[in-house]
Amino acid sequence: MTMRAADGSPEVHLYEQVITEMAALIDAGALRPGDRLPSVRRLSRQRGVSVATVVQAYLGLEDRGLVEARPQSGHYVRARRAPLPPEPRSPRPTTTACKVSVRSLVTRVYTAARDPSIVPFGAAYPSPELLPTDKLNRILAVIARSAGWAGVAYDPPPGLPALRRQVARRAVDGGCALGPDEIVTTSGATEALHLCLRVVARRGETIAIESPTYFGLLQLVESLGIRAVEIPSLPRAGMDLDALEEALGRHRIKAVVAIPNFSNPLGAVMPDESKERLVGLLGRRDIPLIEDDTHGDLHFDDVRPRVAKSFDRRGLVMLCSSFSKTLAPGYRVGWVAPGRFRDAVEHLKFAQSVASPTLPQMAVAQLLEEGGYDHHLRALRRRLAAQVVRVSEAVAEHFPAGTRVARPAGGFVLWVELPFGVSSLDLHARAMEKGISVAPGPLFSAKHRFSNCVRLNCGYPWTDQLDQAVRTLGRLVGELSGS
Amino acid sequence: MTMRAADGSPEVHLYEQVITEMAALIDAGALRPGDRLPSVRRLSRQRGVSVATVVQAYLGLEDRGLVEARPQSGHYVRARRAPLPPEPRSPRPTTTACKVSVRSLVTRVYTAARDPSIVPFGAAYPSPELLPTDKLNRILAVIARSAGWAGVAYDPPPGLPALRRQVARRAVDGGCALGPDEIVTTSGATEALHLCLRVVARRGETIAIESPTYFGLLQLVESLGIRAVEIPSLPRAGMDLDALEEALGRHRIKAVVAIPNFSNPLGAVMPDESKERLVGLLGRRDIPLIEDDTHGDLHFDDVRPRVAKSFDRRGLVMLCSSFSKTLAPGYRVGWVAPGRFRDAVEHLKFAQSVASPTLPQMAVAQLLEEGGYDHHLRALRRRLAAQVVRVSEAVAEHFPAGTRVARPAGGFVLWVELPFGVSSLDLHARAMEKGISVAPGPLFSAKHRFSNCVRLNCGYPWTDQLDQAVRTLGRLVGELSGS
Repeated sequence: MTMRAADGSPEVHLYEQVITEMAALIDAGALRPGDRLPSVRRLSRQRGVSVATVVQAYLGLEDRGLVEARPQSGHYVRARRAPLPPEPRSPRPTTTACKVSVRSLVTRVYTAARDPSIVPFGAAYPSPELLPTDKLNRILAVIARSAGWAGVAYDPPPGLPALRRQVARRAVDGGCALGPDEIVTTSGATEALHLCLRVVARRGETIAIESPTYFGLLQLVESLGIRAVEIPSLPRAGMDLDALEEALGRHRIKAVVAIPNFSNPLGAVMPDESKERLVGLLGRRDIPLIEDDTHGDLHFDDVRPRVAKSFDRRGLVMLCSSFSKTLAPGYRVGWVAPGRFRDAVEHLKFAQSVASPTLPQMAVAQLLEEGGYDHHLRALRRRLAAQVVRVSEAVAEHFPAGTRVARPAGGFVLWVELPFGVSSLDLHARAMEKGISVAPGPLFSAKHRFSNCVRLNCGYPWTDQLDQAVRTLGRLVGELSGS
Repeated sequence: MTMRAADGSPEVHLYEQVITEMAALIDAGALRPGDRLPSVRRLSRQRGVSVATVVQAYLGLEDRGLVEARPQSGHYVRARRAPLPPEPRSPRPTTTACKVSVRSLVTRVYTAARDPSIVPFGAAYPSPELLPTDKLNRILAVIARSAGWAGVAYDPPPGLPALRRQVARRAVDGGCALGPDEIVTTSGATEALHLCLRVVARRGETIAIESPTYFGLLQLVESLGIRAVEIPSLPRAGMDLDALEEALGRHRIKAVVAIPNFSNPLGAVMPDESKERLVGLLGRRDIPLIEDDTHGDLHFDDVRPRVAKSFDRRGLVMLCSSFSKTLAPGYRVGWVAPGRFRDAVEHLKFAQSVASPTLPQMAVAQLLEEGGYDHHLRALRRRLAAQVVRVSEAVAEHFPAGTRVARPAGGFVLWVELPFGVSSLDLHARAMEKGISVAPGPLFSAKHRFSNCVRLNCGYPWTDQLDQAVRTLGRLVGELSGS
């Protein structure tokens, strides 16, 4: 685990510092494609770090696709296959709340995700090979053999104490001091969001959400009959707080739902000052913030971003997360720290489903206790960062001019704005004919906006098949744009 | 599995027929306490069945506490410690719908259930030793070791095909021809009920429920803000259909929820003709029936009762059940056959929690496939039947005159009506001081009726400690009634 030092700043592995610095030099153009990096030995002397640290850092830069090793020669800045296109534009604010309906679109994307013959750019899943599947299953097997009645008994809310202790321990990384008793375990982050929404808003009432946002959230909101005001999400800053403040003045907003860290689909991270401002402006109005931090551990930079909850002094922030994207989607182990709504959430969880299954919680708690989780996360982050770079570069190379590409700071999805007038629904349909799934933009909006955007899942290691699929997508976009 | 023969009647183990017949003779007084039963050899000749069958039947009668073996002498009808008191009275119909609120009472009973030092007459759990805990955990362990990605991947709704096949296969026992595609797996029967309620009724709308009924249902209804009309449940016939018809004329009822087989808390079973009438009268009005069959496999008679769904021709019956009471509460494996509401239920399950955990479903499916489940159920039923008899007899012996006791036909709960004026809430409080948990009657009613009733859990094998606890309860009831 990355611990915070006494002054509150996080301790970071040395090699990660080196990666960040070299990546910044490359990004800024100080090191350009074809430039040779300092030799391992030289950098080790310069920086006063061990040779092993530099080797590890250079491997990390390779993983990210930023440098390449040439035998007998050293490390060189990789030539980008094409300069990245500009970033997508920020959406314009809308002024009305509306009913939400994304159901049929979501079904189409998820049906595709269940078919292994289809190129998986649609639903957002990490590739199985990136997760410690066998390790976790083995832990579960050992526990099941010795658990006896404890393994089959109800584990009523707030949920397994050992798991809540581990979640509390890890919350420090996000800048949060949470006690195990402040946490309720859930069936994934989806159930966590569902419980929060039910506790703070009723059918016909209005909440504020980001736009674009995660369609799982839109589905939940739709199923509950809640109305949503869409607040633009800025590619590099998350929810537009000026627009939010305006909306708060115009609507009777019962709650705000946001994904401050690596929003889905933009991959944006909200700066700490904005998180503080968000928590403050809602706190003054006594409005709860439902914070989805599912991707928070998947930062590409060396420091894990803080959660908005870390600025919460009034118990109004309901922090939701899960282990579905980092360990095992099918274990359905998530959690919520509901602040002052803890008792209501705990009781509703009990009323809705009595309890979450016991053994999967025990297995995840055990894996977290054993301590290999941070090591796994570091490797996972490197792989995901590299995959996002690869997909971005392939889009840059194969998509026609006028395409824009987001710069996610974490997670594993890539938001792509297609040239003006290209319908992502048409692209979705034509791509499916070629065996390629993408998530069309209107999925990510209650108003079905973003008609010329798509989200690409970057959860899979790069292969020729993926490269070929991006090429095909680029050709289809070209045809649809008439270019 | 008990299969139905070609004419639709179920095939029954011969020894179970013998048990039923002898039990009927005892019940009718044809065989009285102290009477000697025919010798094993004689009955075997008389009935043309094997000696082993009769031995098995006599063991079963012993299990039920109806006969006792005397060494070197034979089997004798057991002296009841006291004649059973009369059955509880039927509740009077009420004419108004009301908001539901049982929350704090439920919390108190469940808190007690988590404390192993408390005598467990409160929450309705079968004793761990009656369930195939180690076998199921072992199956899960074997599966987890070899499952790989299949064990950690999402298993999106409608849920694991292997489990749905097993549920469909077993539905034949309840007289139902269900295909695997008509079933959606859930996190226990509670989530099944929750999904059904959300699909058919909204906040402020009215449904009809039994009275008394399972407080888990009341909690769900309360959490959804649905109003409930309470229809009296008759001790030997389930929901009073005349009262229901009247209520249908007076209220705009969006759905009816019933537990036709071994209702909780009464243990009543609705006769087949009534089930058919219920399904018919709702069908003509196009009103869905949510049928909770959680205890359906726990029949004390030799034949499993039909489900109301078996009379459904219009897809209006939503059949809910689980393996929580027969295998493993903490695995949270349940299911629903939602009839014409299948797609809506499937979609809502996806929106609410994406999926149920995969591995517990795989383990339950495997155990059902291996075929030991019916054998386990037979043993479980015999034990539960015996335990219900023991608790009933102890109440008869130790509770003061004016007490009434239900005659459950299955399941493992016993509904006791205390003498007029005795408050079961007071009894609950005083019993807790003595380390005994009971479920007070007002828990089982949206209007907090049944103030002089308690439900006793009979899920635990009889011990001196339980006997002593019933004695203590009887004394407390005596004090409260001033007798």
